[in-house]
Amino acid sequence: MAKKDKKSGKSGSSGKGAAVAAATKAGRAKKASKHPDSKAAKATALAPVSFSDALRVREGFILAECDPGSTPAFDGDKAAGQEALAARAGEIGEFQERLYAESKMDGQRSLLLIVQGMDTSGKGGIMRHVVGGMDPQGVRYTSFKAPSAEERSHPFLWRIRNALPHPGQVGVFDRSQYEDVLVVRVHDLVPRSTWSRRYAQINAFEEKVVADGTTVVKVMMHISTDEQKARLARRLKRPDKQWKYNPGDVDERMSWPQYQEAYQAVLDRTSTDAAPWYVVPADRKWYARLAVQSLVLEHLEAMDPQWPAVDYDVAEEQQRLRAT
Amino acid sequence: MAKKDKKSGKSGSSGKGAAVAAATKAGRAKKASKHPDSKAAKATALAPVSFSDALRVREGFILAECDPGSTPAFDGDKAAGQEALAARAGEIGEFQERLYAESKMDGQRSLLLIVQGMDTSGKGGIMRHVVGGMDPQGVRYTSFKAPSAEERSHPFLWRIRNALPHPGQVGVFDRSQYEDVLVVRVHDLVPRSTWSRRYAQINAFEEKVVADGTTVVKVMMHISTDEQKARLARRLKRPDKQWKYNPGDVDERMSWPQYQEAYQAVLDRTSTDAAPWYVVPADRKWYARLAVQSLVLEHLEAMDPQWPAVDYDVAEEQQRLRAT
Repeated sequence: MAKKDKKSGKSGSSGKGAAVAAATKAGRAKKASKHPDSKAAKATALAPVSFSDALRVREGFILAECDPGSTPAFDGDKAAGQEALAARAGEIGEFQERLYAESKMDGQRSLLLIVQGMDTSGKGGIMRHVVGGMDPQGVRYTSFKAPSAEERSHPFLWRIRNALPHPGQVGVFDRSQYEDVLVVRVHDLVPRSTWSRRYAQINAFEEKVVADGTTVVKVMMHISTDEQKARLARRLKRPDKQWKYNPGDVDERMSWPQYQEAYQAVLDRTSTDAAPWYVVPADRKWYARLAVQSLVLEHLEAMDPQWPAVDYDVAEEQQRLRAT
Repeated sequence: MAKKDKKSGKSGSSGKGAAVAAATKAGRAKKASKHPDSKAAKATALAPVSFSDALRVREGFILAECDPGSTPAFDGDKAAGQEALAARAGEIGEFQERLYAESKMDGQRSLLLIVQGMDTSGKGGIMRHVVGGMDPQGVRYTSFKAPSAEERSHPFLWRIRNALPHPGQVGVFDRSQYEDVLVVRVHDLVPRSTWSRRYAQINAFEEKVVADGTTVVKVMMHISTDEQKARLARRLKRPDKQWKYNPGDVDERMSWPQYQEAYQAVLDRTSTDAAPWYVVPADRKWYARLAVQSLVLEHLEAMDPQWPAVDYDVAEEQQRLRAT
């Protein structure tokens, strides 16, 4: 199927397996990268049908016009989406290992996935089902809560800098520096003059991070207010979910319009060439997971890490080993 | 099958599915814990057939007499072992979530998995296939390399203390404080008078950690010298594995007897009631992975974390939510 797609330049859309073909449209490069011709894979990694292209925030993007129930870059159903998710986990694992291997021989590159979103938007599911599918040896995961006393005594980017991925790693931020222009802005936790300077500070910071070798993938999980209501209701109903709920969640929900405005400002002011935002429609959990996973995979494909050449004499070492 | 086992007091050993039944002998408690009678589950969690019982280092244990190719507490084959591994991942996930939930309401407990073993003993595979099956939100993973200049300027337990799991987490140490009585002892990196005091220091440290609420599971991956030779040869042969090899690996291999002696001393002196060692035969990778996963699962079962009661009025919150 993948080969046929390559020839015709478009994906199959009928017959048995069409849904999976659709599911892996953006994944063609990934399949190809298993073959020796990974140059070709690279060239098509960010083809027009990719999740990266479909979800990227460009100038003039209006959050309110993005349908949280839509499934851009994917025309399969839930079952096909889940199948694609399982298939891609192994492929991410291989890229991770190459990236890590590269870093053992002076490679300086890493990837940073930043996940932001309203309460119940599915960040936890991304961690469990997308990050959980990665090799933990190559993941640096950080969940940012309300800052501690020590963190508050430093500039807001201090704790972020300390959590950046090392060369060869995939860093994952569950919330991030953007809290400092979201909850902080909505509730005026610092003066406007302070938070309003932070957009430029974040841009400068991220530009430096990217220049130092980190590919930054910023994801906003976009749910509807109705879907949030349904998810909060579910938490309140199920005894094994009640611990996830706290009364502050409804208080925050009252500020929904202010949060949407704050998110729009983030997208307007910090979706840069160096580190663009991707808005992921998140009313369908299965889609959001597949989309975030695919964004990571597409960026790893574009990085195209290679097994490093070794600096010892293989034959000589084989002989030494034989003698033991 | 599980029910029948419970009645007869032993596992089925013939007929279709016997291998899987064998695979889950030790897991009966785990299955039972899905049912309301989790007290009963707890009581049998460390039953005679458990991995914990079969692999625990007791007084008089001789490492040289433990067969690295054996498969204690499991009489299924490789396929059955892999099937059991996949099945148990989800169960660990549920325990993790309960442990985490408990910590949100003042729970102070955590679990710490320490993995030690010679080069090529399969520590990486444990991280990928056992830890990789856990929810990353509840895992604190640390890989200990040769200590940095800063780490060397502190007592040897300093970096260990900094990496302990927080309440609700599963901590994972890929190598650990035991390097300071293994490689350090074999190569005399500090005077004998210094390393020889460390066994007691480690015991006191671990006793405190356990008293503070952390269940400690210490695993030694036990491979044979022949199997190590075969694995190193494979690394040298495969271009996608060569980066994992370095000439120092053969140098270390020359010290094999000294390392076995150092491991025996560790097992003699630090397998305490508070924090016993488990020796996992590791010549068969599939078995070692299943065994380590089962050790973690059995200890989580024994901890028996529960969904916490919430401190808000559910009906009131449902009403507040409905009004939004």
